[in-house]
Amino acid sequence: MTDTFILRRQVEFNHCDPAGIVFYPRYFEMISAVTERFFADAVGFGWTAMRESGNGTPMGTIEARFHAPSRLEDWLDFVLTVKRIGRSSAVLLITGSCEGEPRFTCEATVIHANVDSGSSSPWPDALRAIMSRYLHPSSQIKKDCR
Amino acid sequence: MTDTFILRRQVEFNHCDPAGIVFYPRYFEMISAVTERFFADAVGFGWTAMRESGNGTPMGTIEARFHAPSRLEDWLDFVLTVKRIGRSSAVLLITGSCEGEPRFTCEATVIHANVDSGSSSPWPDALRAIMSRYLHPSSQIKKDCR
Amino acid sequence: MTDTFILRRQVEFNHCDPAGIVFYPRYFEMISAVTERFFADAVGFGWTAMRESGNGTPMGTIEARFHAPSRLEDWLDFVLTVKRIGRSSAVLLITGSCEGEPRFTCEATVIHANVDSGSSSPWPDALRAIMSRYLHPSSQIKKDCR
Amino acid sequence: MTDTFILRRQVEFNHCDPAGIVFYPRYFEMISAVTERFFADAVGFGWTAMRESGNGTPMGTIEARFHAPSRLEDWLDFVLTVKRIGRSSAVLLITGSCEGEPRFTCEATVIHANVDSGSSSPWPDALRAIMSRYLHPSSQIKKDCR
Repeated sequence: MTDTFILRRQVEFNHCDPAGIVFYPRYFEMISAVTERFFADAVGFGWTAMRESGNGTPMGTIEARFHAPSRLEDWLDFVLTVKRIGRSSAVLLITGSCEGEPRFTCEATVIHANVDSGSSSPWPDALRAIMSRYLHPSSQIKKDCR
Repeated sequence: MTDTFILRRQVEFNHCDPAGIVFYPRYFEMISAVTERFFADAVGFGWTAMRESGNGTPMGTIEARFHAPSRLEDWLDFVLTVKRIGRSSAVLLITGSCEGEPRFTCEATVIHANVDSGSSSPWPDALRAIMSRYLHPSSQIKKDCR
Repeated sequence: MTDTFILRRQVEFNHCDPAGIVFYPRYFEMISAVTERFFADAVGFGWTAMRESGNGTPMGTIEARFHAPSRLEDWLDFVLTVKRIGRSSAVLLITGSCEGEPRFTCEATVIHANVDSGSSSPWPDALRAIMSRYLHPSSQIKKDCR
Repeated sequence: MTDTFILRRQVEFNHCDPAGIVFYPRYFEMISAVTERFFADAVGFGWTAMRESGNGTPMGTIEARFHAPSRLEDWLDFVLTVKRIGRSSAVLLITGSCEGEPRFTCEATVIHANVDSGSSSPWPDALRAIMSRYLHPSSQIKKDCR
């Protein structure tokens, strides 16, 4: 039984470009917000907890595939699952869709790293346990879409 | 004899909204950049100097009047002068124009304040002396435009 | 009896600057979103209706006063009321606060204007009637805060 | 003999996050600007030309690897080359570095597509010829960095 983290947002004027569609760097702002809310609300590793632990979750690599444009006032459903958890990294799958139509698929590798030194540090067991609940064993989301 | 601080930037895709014109919050990002470059390049009070002094220049009030829309690939000339220098604040006048046509006029009051406590602190004499060179005695720029 | 339009949002990583507080141009993105949602959800004059009418609501002038910094994960309450409705313009008052503590006060004058020509056009009676419900006769909000 | 398209920009306050480093969605805004300037200044396919042709260059897929954080006032050198030109798509390689130190490597696939229908359309010969000058036969940039 796997959990799924979902966020729903509406496309606003500030997200759209002169072609009237979402400007792709704005998707990355949304993806950042989804990841941030996942760590804060689902994993219990928000900004305060990060500062206390001295660790953060910087982005290591990120790739996105854009399937169809999104337009002003579209409601976007962001779904986040975990594809893989390494010793000190995790691969997150984030998809964005509108009324079931895929808009983008994104695979993001975050690193659990010390804020000052930048060096990676192993996930604490408590965090790993919670993140594991969002693990999709055969994460086919991305493959299916490509 | 008064100095004038000038910055020139081109309107990019990421600045424009679905109506094809500059989205006004992007003007404030540009205004922030002009102010930042003024303090760093003209006044010699950049990020490093601010951190060493423990003081920054947060925005107290800002008002802008938009005269005409700017479009993709327009070259904008930003002109910054100082309208008034207080004990621990300064009123900056920033105008944006394209080939001489005014696009916006902005009056911004920055506070010289301690970063941690947030309380205002008097401008050091050295900074005040440099900023005074950009003082326009009868700053009519804004009034003229309104 | 006057209506009030309220929106509630949480401060995210992408809103904050190196000092750890909301970067003021991001406030203008939020103010833009509040205004956009007000016209769409309260007035019934969203993007589709605007396009059909050929008119939009570009910003004429905007001024903001920043009272106290906002930090990551703060919940901000945005309250919008109408201070004055002109023939083809309207002055909106937008305040942002966190748990009752004022963070900013903003007065924005939007113009009801033709998208192509840019020339102002009178508010239709139906829009004016709805906007009037949000009119605060003696809009003292701003004055009190200053 | 291969051409290389270079753009140089300084990291500003508005690019940085509470950790004091460039917030990765801002890199994508910069990447968008580099791509935009490449098509406008190098290829001669700017906004006006795109509108006349009815075609644009939306992003199909993009992936980025972040090597080291960038900080306020860093000067970033963006280098763009072309890895592959398809019938109606092109793979661009964009790297960002500071004084020779790699900060990110990005591979972006843009589609030459009709703005209205969204369907891909073959590159005109003239555009293909110019883009070919930026083609790096054995584009090892990315591989080297990974």
